[in-house]
Amino acid sequence: MHIHIHEFPDSPFLKLTADEFHTAAALAGAAGQGHRLTMGESIADYEAAADTLEVLIATPGAVRRLDLMGAPHLKLIQSTAAGVDALAPFDMIPAGVKLLNNRGVHADRAGEFAIMAMLMLTTQMQCFAADQRAQRWQRRPSGVVAGRRATIVGVGGLGGGAARRARQFGIHVTGIRFGTDPHPDCDETLPIAALDTVLPSSDFLLLACPLTHATRHLLDARRIALLPAHAGVINIGRGGLVDQAALIAALNTHAIAGAVLDVFAAEPIPPGDPVWTAENLIITPHISSDDPDHYNAATLAKFFANLATLAEGRDPPTLVDLSKGY
Amino acid sequence: MHIHIHEFPDSPFLKLTADEFHTAAALAGAAGQGHRLTMGESIADYEAAADTLEVLIATPGAVRRLDLMGAPHLKLIQSTAAGVDALAPFDMIPAGVKLLNNRGVHADRAGEFAIMAMLMLTTQMQCFAADQRAQRWQRRPSGVVAGRRATIVGVGGLGGGAARRARQFGIHVTGIRFGTDPHPDCDETLPIAALDTVLPSSDFLLLACPLTHATRHLLDARRIALLPAHAGVINIGRGGLVDQAALIAALNTHAIAGAVLDVFAAEPIPPGDPVWTAENLIITPHISSDDPDHYNAATLAKFFANLATLAEGRDPPTLVDLSKGY
Repeated sequence: MHIHIHEFPDSPFLKLTADEFHTAAALAGAAGQGHRLTMGESIADYEAAADTLEVLIATPGAVRRLDLMGAPHLKLIQSTAAGVDALAPFDMIPAGVKLLNNRGVHADRAGEFAIMAMLMLTTQMQCFAADQRAQRWQRRPSGVVAGRRATIVGVGGLGGGAARRARQFGIHVTGIRFGTDPHPDCDETLPIAALDTVLPSSDFLLLACPLTHATRHLLDARRIALLPAHAGVINIGRGGLVDQAALIAALNTHAIAGAVLDVFAAEPIPPGDPVWTAENLIITPHISSDDPDHYNAATLAKFFANLATLAEGRDPPTLVDLSKGY
Repeated sequence: MHIHIHEFPDSPFLKLTADEFHTAAALAGAAGQGHRLTMGESIADYEAAADTLEVLIATPGAVRRLDLMGAPHLKLIQSTAAGVDALAPFDMIPAGVKLLNNRGVHADRAGEFAIMAMLMLTTQMQCFAADQRAQRWQRRPSGVVAGRRATIVGVGGLGGGAARRARQFGIHVTGIRFGTDPHPDCDETLPIAALDTVLPSSDFLLLACPLTHATRHLLDARRIALLPAHAGVINIGRGGLVDQAALIAALNTHAIAGAVLDVFAAEPIPPGDPVWTAENLIITPHISSDDPDHYNAATLAKFFANLATLAEGRDPPTLVDLSKGY
């Protein structure tokens, strides 16, 4: 097949290289054989490949900037990100073209980030950061995380990785999911309709679900008000999952104890945005799933596993259901 | 026995209560029975108890302020801290009086703090804190901690707890100890003489040993220079283990990547001290072993275990060797 990897020079992602592609292909057995690879960085590069390309590998942001209708043989788009909300409502994807993401690639690193955030909130690092700026020495109560309760909204790759780590530390994990399957790394798995009932007993609320029309502003002022005053919020999903203004108000009024946010309503956060100066907030710049040593190899391994499954006539493992958006 | 618990009102520690004492005594079987308890907060309180007290339970800082020679029946001092360096060189301890600490009580919490610090340094949280203050959105490379190498100096309670957690994350752990026993939670255990040989391959250097005449300024400019530029230093032991001026110079010149320090040459850190404004430094105010929900109960359980062992004529488990200082 003609496989085209496209990445604009301004991409925040780690560039995929031809070497990485060939290494992954060599590991993939039959699914890795017989392909022609082109690489592109510009619209002209894409147009030169469009006539024959059958597979496009790119970030959702890059895909959005390409004329997919101009690629008559396109069959597959492999997103190099798990979240494909940048392509919603998916009306630019030609009929019959399958969209694949790389969900699962982020699980290890996201699990580490999530337990780090839970430990930081327990230690009150959000207060010590301000204390350090003010040159103020003030002990604050902390303790072990064992026995505390985490509610994890979305127990796919990110949330599942977080649940696994949290359980290792003796944290009680409630997984909230849109399906109904129990998750093996959660103490209990509840449907989204039950979220409100567990918020008042949540020490940590971790958002790790896709952004869809059903999850936008899932954490709004009403739900924030259901959290206890000592609760900490962690968002490693998408900024749009949260009513950011309501969350900042809750932080600034100490209605909740703190937050670790990796994703925001607008990224980069605009200069002067009130999120920069919110109290008891720890900001990271959308890096909670970054794992440069493993990310590209793991993404390409997912891609070739998808190809292998397709060759057997089955649905590929990371096929995106366009009606759900993940 | 007459047991006197003494804590001055300015103590930074969690006050032990009579209720906590009686709860622990009830759990301790025979070792908990038949005692008379007094509690003191002032020199006058101590003097009222001194004639008959046989056991003193107090912080090292409190012990130092009491006239031990004025307590003719004193046999045991149970420190409510693990580090007893405040009492060195121990010449105020009357001959024949045993000093006990509570080592081991801090292991769980210290382990959590240590892995939090390793994850924070890997995530470059020390840079993101400054970025947040400057309202600067800048991604920085991170990744999973698996496969990185931690050197842990001191694998007693604190360091052992840290080693256990680090291993759970796939970190390669080199334990450095003054004895020669291999530690079960370390990949390798080396004598202090080997420290210099492992520093160049250390991604994390964690100090978790007691402060003694042998460990003062153990991390000096020469050893800091042996660390790789991407290394992170974590100190949960005592500030005196580090040549603090040399460490701050290394941070400010980016000779190492970052540090998480919980203990300092002077505590509280004085206003205007250069440690407050060192680059890539995360400061916590001597809280890395705080565990208010469990600390007092665990300390008292250690105390009664010490009493039970003494009653059998054996050395108590947390007896301090005054010649070593721990």
